[in-house]
Amino acid sequence: MIIAAGRGSRLEQKGLSKPLVPVLGKPIIERVIRSGISAGIKDFYVVTGFNGTRVREFLDDLALHCAIRITHLSNNEWDKGNGLSVLKAAELIKDDFLLMMGDHLVDPDLIKELISKGVSDGEVLLAVDRKLSNPLVNVADATKVKVNGQRVESIGKGLKEFNAFDTGFFLCSPEIFHAIEQSISNGGDSSLSGGINWLAKRGKVRSIEIGDRFWIDVDDPVALKKAEKALLENLHAKQNDGPVSRYLNRPLSTKISRYLAGLPLTANQISFISFSLCLVASALFCIPGYRALVVGGVLTQLASILDGCDGEIARIKFEESEFGAWFDAVLDRYGDAFLLFALTLHACADTARLFVVVVGFMAIIGSFMVSYTADKYDSLMRERIKPAFRIGRDMRLFLIFLGALLNQALAVLVILAVLMNAETIRRIYICRGK
Amino acid sequence: MIIAAGRGSRLEQKGLSKPLVPVLGKPIIERVIRSGISAGIKDFYVVTGFNGTRVREFLDDLALHCAIRITHLSNNEWDKGNGLSVLKAAELIKDDFLLMMGDHLVDPDLIKELISKGVSDGEVLLAVDRKLSNPLVNVADATKVKVNGQRVESIGKGLKEFNAFDTGFFLCSPEIFHAIEQSISNGGDSSLSGGINWLAKRGKVRSIEIGDRFWIDVDDPVALKKAEKALLENLHAKQNDGPVSRYLNRPLSTKISRYLAGLPLTANQISFISFSLCLVASALFCIPGYRALVVGGVLTQLASILDGCDGEIARIKFEESEFGAWFDAVLDRYGDAFLLFALTLHACADTARLFVVVVGFMAIIGSFMVSYTADKYDSLMRERIKPAFRIGRDMRLFLIFLGALLNQALAVLVILAVLMNAETIRRIYICRGK
Repeated sequence: MIIAAGRGSRLEQKGLSKPLVPVLGKPIIERVIRSGISAGIKDFYVVTGFNGTRVREFLDDLALHCAIRITHLSNNEWDKGNGLSVLKAAELIKDDFLLMMGDHLVDPDLIKELISKGVSDGEVLLAVDRKLSNPLVNVADATKVKVNGQRVESIGKGLKEFNAFDTGFFLCSPEIFHAIEQSISNGGDSSLSGGINWLAKRGKVRSIEIGDRFWIDVDDPVALKKAEKALLENLHAKQNDGPVSRYLNRPLSTKISRYLAGLPLTANQISFISFSLCLVASALFCIPGYRALVVGGVLTQLASILDGCDGEIARIKFEESEFGAWFDAVLDRYGDAFLLFALTLHACADTARLFVVVVGFMAIIGSFMVSYTADKYDSLMRERIKPAFRIGRDMRLFLIFLGALLNQALAVLVILAVLMNAETIRRIYICRGK
Repeated sequence: MIIAAGRGSRLEQKGLSKPLVPVLGKPIIERVIRSGISAGIKDFYVVTGFNGTRVREFLDDLALHCAIRITHLSNNEWDKGNGLSVLKAAELIKDDFLLMMGDHLVDPDLIKELISKGVSDGEVLLAVDRKLSNPLVNVADATKVKVNGQRVESIGKGLKEFNAFDTGFFLCSPEIFHAIEQSISNGGDSSLSGGINWLAKRGKVRSIEIGDRFWIDVDDPVALKKAEKALLENLHAKQNDGPVSRYLNRPLSTKISRYLAGLPLTANQISFISFSLCLVASALFCIPGYRALVVGGVLTQLASILDGCDGEIARIKFEESEFGAWFDAVLDRYGDAFLLFALTLHACADTARLFVVVVGFMAIIGSFMVSYTADKYDSLMRERIKPAFRIGRDMRLFLIFLGALLNQALAVLVILAVLMNAETIRRIYICRGK
C-alpha cells in the first residue's frame, strides 16, 4: 500500500503534482512502485488525493507495462491526517501488507528484508534509521522514533526525546486499521503516527535498522537533488569497477549519467554512442602525426567514461536487460580491437617493421583474452573476501589515452601486449583445478 | 548394491579379474560405480567372490577418491546362483535400494529415472529393453523377460516366450531378500531371477522401458569392443557439434579417443597438445612458399580433430571439470589467433598491402567474436526445437586447412573476415531484446 495523497506543494513542478515529479528521469511514484516490484510485490493499493486524476492515469499505464495490479483508492480529505489515507484500505486488505510513502525512496534490499522478517499477531514492523546525523535527513521535517532495543516506544514529528528516524517503510498486520480508528476516537489524532503510537503503547511495534542502506524523503527541491545524488552513488557502491573508472571516471560519469537520465536515450543507444566514439578515435589514429593521435586519445577516454554510463542509465531507468549487458560487451570488444589495430597502423607509419605488427597483434589478442576470461575469473574472485585489483577495459582505454597524449603509440602497444597476456596467464594459473 | 562375484572367465585379462578389466581405460566396476555416483548415490554395497582381494583394494581407493562409502560383502559360493550374492546384504539393507550388475554398463540417466520412479509395498522395478534386435545384446546369453503392460510375468535365461531383455538394473524393496529365500526353499533356484519370478507370480514386479538409452552386458571380448564403441557414440549423441566435427572429424576423432583413453594422458594435456599443433602450424605459415603452407594446413586440421578428443577423454575418464572446458576454450582462442595472424603474414609475403593486413585483422576479430558470443547464442538456441547449423571452430580450422591445400591464404582470410563478422552481427540481431 502506498500513500500518495498529500499536496506536496514544495515540489510541484510545471503543473506536475508531486508523485509525478521526475527523479533522474522517472516519476517518484514509479520509483517507489518499481522498488516494490523488484522485491517481488505484484499487487499495489495506491491512495491518491490532491490532483489525483493524472496520477491515476499514469499508474494505469505503469500497471499495464509492468504486468502488476494497481488498485486506486481516493482520499478527498488529503489535507487531514495521513491515517485517514491508510483507513481507505481497511475493507480491502485482510492480510499482512507493506506500507510505503509515495515520496520516500529506498534501497530495494530493505523492502526485501522487511518482507522476509514478517510480522505476527497484530504487530507492526517499522524500518528506522539510527544514524541521527544522516545528511539525507531533514531533521526538522522528519518523523522521529524512540526505540528501546527492538521495541518502538513512541513516534511523532514533535518528539523531544528520540534515537532514530522513521523511514516511512512499515510491514503491517491489518490490526493497524483498528489502531488508527482507536487513535482518532481516543484523542482525535488522525495521523498514521497516532495509530502506531496506540500500538506501541501495547508493545506491538518492532523496529528493524536500515543500517548503511540509503533512504530519503523527497519533500522539496533540495531533497530531490540529494536523492538524485544518493541514487547514483548507491548504484556505484554495488559495482565492481576497475580503478580508473572508480577513481578517475566516476566524478564525470556520474554528472553525465545525471544529465543523460533526463534525455530520451536508451542505455543501448548510449552503448552505441560510446562505440561510435571508439570508431572515430580509431579513424583518427590511422592519420599519421601527433595532432590526430591526441584528439583520438581524448575521444578514447571519453568513450571509456561514457561506457560507465550505459549500465548506470539502464539501472536508473529500470531498463536493465541481459541483452543490454551482452550487447555492450560485444560492442566493447569490437571497439577495443579497432582502437588497437588503428594504433598499430599508426605505429607502423613511424617504423614499419614486423615487430610493430606482432606487438599490435599481441595487444589485441591479450585484450580480448582478458575480457574472455573475465566472467570465470570474476565469479571466482567474488567468492573471496575482497575483489582484487581489476585489470580491465577502463585501464586499457586509459593507457591508450596516455600513450596518445605522450605520442607513444608503440610503447602503449608493448605495455598492453605484455600486461594483458600476462594477466590472462595469471588467471589461468589462479583458476586451475577449480 | 552391486553384484561382482562371478568369475567372468571369458574376460580375464593379464591376470586381472573381470571387474578390473578396463573399458576405455577405466575398470568396468569403476564405470558402474561412477554411473551410480552421477545419479546421486553415495553408499554402495559390493559383493565380490572369485579373486576378490584385488577388487576390494581397488574399491577402497576409489571410495576414498570419490568420497563415497563402499561396504564389501564376500560370497564364497560365487559359482552358485547369483541370488546368494544378493542375500549377503539381507541383514544390512533395510531400505529400498538399487541393484546393479558389476558388468552391466548403462546411460546414467536410466539410473536417475529408476530412482525417481520409486517402489512401494514390497515391489521390484526392473529396467527392460524391448528392442529385441538390439545389436548390443547377445541373445543366447541374455536374461529374457515376459512383460504384459507394465507388469513382468516371468524372467529367465531359458525363457521360450519373451518380449524384452533384462538390463540388470533393478530398484528393489527389501522384500527381494525374502523372495530369493522362498525361491531357494521352494524349488532350489538360487538365482536372482528365481527370486524375481517368485515376486512376479504375486504381481509385484513392474518394468520400465530403457527406450533409446544405451546398456550393455560386458561378458566377453566381443561385448567389450561393442561397449567401447557404444560409450563413444553415446558421448557424441549428447554433443552439439558443428557440421565439420560431426560429419568429417568424428570417424577419426572417435578412433583417436579410443586409443588415447588407454594412455596416461589427461584431457587438459590433450588440449595442450592440440594447441601446440596450432602453434607449429602457425610457425609453418610464417615460412613463405606452398610446401610449408600445406603442412601447416594439415596440422591445423589435425589440431581440429584432436580438439574434439579432449572433451571426449574428459567424459570417458570421468575427468570433466569446469576448469577443463574453460582452459580448452582459452587455448582455442589463442590457437585461432596465432593461426590467423600467421596466415596474414603469409599472405603479406605474397602481396604486402594494407588491404591484406586489414582483412587478416577482421578475420581475427570476427573469429573471436563468434566464440565470444557463442555462450549466449547457444543458450538461446537450446530453447528452440532444433540446434541450427553451427558456425564454429571446426569450420574455421577446416577453411584454413582447405585454403592451405589450395594455396589461397588471402581468400581464406577474406572468407573468414566476412563469414565470422556477419555471423556475429546475425547473432546480435537474433538475441536482441532477450
